[in-house]
Amino acid sequence: MIKRLAIIGVGLIGGSLSLALKKAGVVGEVIGYSRTEHVRQQALNLGIIDIAASSVKQAVKEADVVFLAVPLAAMSSVLTELAGNMSDNCIITDGGSAKGELVKLARSVLGNSFSQFVPGHPIAGTEKSGPDAAFATLYQDHRVVLTPVAETNLAALEKIRSMWQATGAEVFDMDVEHHDVVLAATSHLPHVLAFNLVNMLAERDDCDEVLRYAAGGFRDFSRIASGDAVMWRDICLANSDAILGLLEQYHQGLNQLEQAIKNQDGDTLITVFERAKQARDTRFSED
Amino acid sequence: MIKRLAIIGVGLIGGSLSLALKKAGVVGEVIGYSRTEHVRQQALNLGIIDIAASSVKQAVKEADVVFLAVPLAAMSSVLTELAGNMSDNCIITDGGSAKGELVKLARSVLGNSFSQFVPGHPIAGTEKSGPDAAFATLYQDHRVVLTPVAETNLAALEKIRSMWQATGAEVFDMDVEHHDVVLAATSHLPHVLAFNLVNMLAERDDCDEVLRYAAGGFRDFSRIASGDAVMWRDICLANSDAILGLLEQYHQGLNQLEQAIKNQDGDTLITVFERAKQARDTRFSED
Repeated sequence: MIKRLAIIGVGLIGGSLSLALKKAGVVGEVIGYSRTEHVRQQALNLGIIDIAASSVKQAVKEADVVFLAVPLAAMSSVLTELAGNMSDNCIITDGGSAKGELVKLARSVLGNSFSQFVPGHPIAGTEKSGPDAAFATLYQDHRVVLTPVAETNLAALEKIRSMWQATGAEVFDMDVEHHDVVLAATSHLPHVLAFNLVNMLAERDDCDEVLRYAAGGFRDFSRIASGDAVMWRDICLANSDAILGLLEQYHQGLNQLEQAIKNQDGDTLITVFERAKQARDTRFSED
Repeated sequence: MIKRLAIIGVGLIGGSLSLALKKAGVVGEVIGYSRTEHVRQQALNLGIIDIAASSVKQAVKEADVVFLAVPLAAMSSVLTELAGNMSDNCIITDGGSAKGELVKLARSVLGNSFSQFVPGHPIAGTEKSGPDAAFATLYQDHRVVLTPVAETNLAALEKIRSMWQATGAEVFDMDVEHHDVVLAATSHLPHVLAFNLVNMLAERDDCDEVLRYAAGGFRDFSRIASGDAVMWRDICLANSDAILGLLEQYHQGLNQLEQAIKNQDGDTLITVFERAKQARDTRFSED
């Protein structure tokens, strides 16, 4: 049970956590802060938060759990502001998509309270954002990864695990570094690839005509290029090492396919395409 | 009205055309040929064809329209076999995803009958294949591109246009070269990109674990990597020039993003991501 939950950033991710916990009956009250008053008001009106705070300081003061759901680039200023203002046993957790840089930052900003910080990442979302995009079942049957470090207080870790379990999510623990590579491979790199393709088409004079002939396959492939540009910039900058390592491998694979197409080497194409098809069909058989 | 339609290759594409024309009541009878007897029998049992032919020759002999729905690599032998065996006014059309190489091939194989060949490409499909994947509404509200050349007989072109319109498709005419670039950009290149990513993940020792954390975005992005490997090999080999040209551009774009990530240059990332997002949101507003 959480007596007072403070949510910093009441958009899709923060708002959906609040709605899920309220639905599960495991939270007393929710106080929320967002930079813009309009968003705070919207979250109040939608019943996502019970109290709108006018500052991070006010939001965290009497909270027992603080959930940070702001863009990664805003984490530094938010952590700095909450560091001096939270109560002694307050637990802090977050929903950031890249953990390495954030953990470093939290260690340096939070000082002794760093043991109360449980880094987390709910692997859920839509291409929409804002409080009106939030819904109580966003995390249902989705995975949440927690990436505790050596200093992390175990009671704090278990409290955050319970919180996510109450939303209907499956909770897993993972090393920070491993998390960042896994997410780079299945989310960050694919976004970079999709943004790059759609940008390349957008730069063509005949872009409108070209896209008119795009079928369902392209539509699915490019859906992630509708993601929020600021959020994805932040993720690319925060998880640059893992993304760059995988981009290097991706280039190599693409070069191999390019050579095969140039040399009319059908066997190499078949080998690569078959292995990909089999891996995907095995993993996502229900498609 | 088509008296006898011959379908060479009674899978998803050929089978769905037959079902759509039967439903529209614009075809007398449908004779079908596939290389394997099992598939022919299946197509008969499903009511996709009325007569199963045991050879291309038998299938086309008394047909007034022949639809070629075999993989691109099989087109050469099929065209050669039908060349000497079709009746004088028989019209030939096809469903191949790349037109340049096929038009060259047809011109050399069909001789005087080349004017009766209407190159076509229904832009529709699913990741499934075979007669049991066929359904009557596959082409409904989809685009079909016809790529007539200088020699193409106009009456033949109009007959094939009417045929596709009867399936509920919108029919457009396009230059062969333009078609091949447009399709490379919106279909062939995306498939190469998706196959390459999934293959790269499949080669990892921790592939299963990595894919366990893949969310909906990855699932959509990688869906096209479930496509038929042989079909996509054929398309890559047949449309190599257009695909290689776009791959070159794609590499350049990716290099630019790579540099931006390396240099922590958020402005470049935002510019690219925003342009991509805007192009996609504008074109696919209903997503």
